[in-house]
Amino acid sequence: MPEGRWYMSMLLDFYGDLLTERQRNCCDLHYNEDLSLSEIAEQCGISRQGVWDTIRHAEDTLRETEEKTGLLQRFSETEEKLAKVLQDLEQLRTMTDGEAGELTERAASEIRMLLQRG
Amino acid sequence: MPEGRWYMSMLLDFYGDLLTERQRNCCDLHYNEDLSLSEIAEQCGISRQGVWDTIRHAEDTLRETEEKTGLLQRFSETEEKLAKVLQDLEQLRTMTDGEAGELTERAASEIRMLLQRG
Repeated sequence: MPEGRWYMSMLLDFYGDLLTERQRNCCDLHYNEDLSLSEIAEQCGISRQGVWDTIRHAEDTLRETEEKTGLLQRFSETEEKLAKVLQDLEQLRTMTDGEAGELTERAASEIRMLLQRG
Repeated sequence: MPEGRWYMSMLLDFYGDLLTERQRNCCDLHYNEDLSLSEIAEQCGISRQGVWDTIRHAEDTLRETEEKTGLLQRFSETEEKLAKVLQDLEQLRTMTDGEAGELTERAASEIRMLLQRG
């Protein structure tokens, strides 16, 4: 199973709104803002152990939701394929001009935007 | 809010695995197999009212999950954009040949597959 900060941050982006406000807040500070448990404890006015438990339960919920729905996996696979399509279009751009060049550029920039949005 | 069979079927595809087995089963028979409540009741060995309640609760869960995460909306927007990209590539295909034609065809067919997968 993929782990690490990036993966948890993606799970949080996808399913964070299914968590309680406190869970979402603690996870956001930990995974996106890179705060330590002690810093989060201070900021939220709960114990360090409380932060730890909150994040652990939240992680369980996020992981279980992904295990059931597989939507992040689906998104990731689409992104991988689009990145390959974009490579093809960038190569194609060097071979086209005029109207064909414009169509290629438009298609490429649309896919670039989709990839940036994540 | 979008409604109708197609929308519920999409919600079920996205979030169906978050439902109980009975909820998922009743919704699948209703939205994907197009069975009536009475037919589902007979098939599942519960009352028609029981089927109705089960489907209503399931729909609430599916709608609430989408309201919170917006993931189906995100997917749908991506699909709309990819459909436009595909149109551009199909037009481009009529203007290209040789290696450029092959690159265009490969990009187009990759996007076609993504759209078919849904």
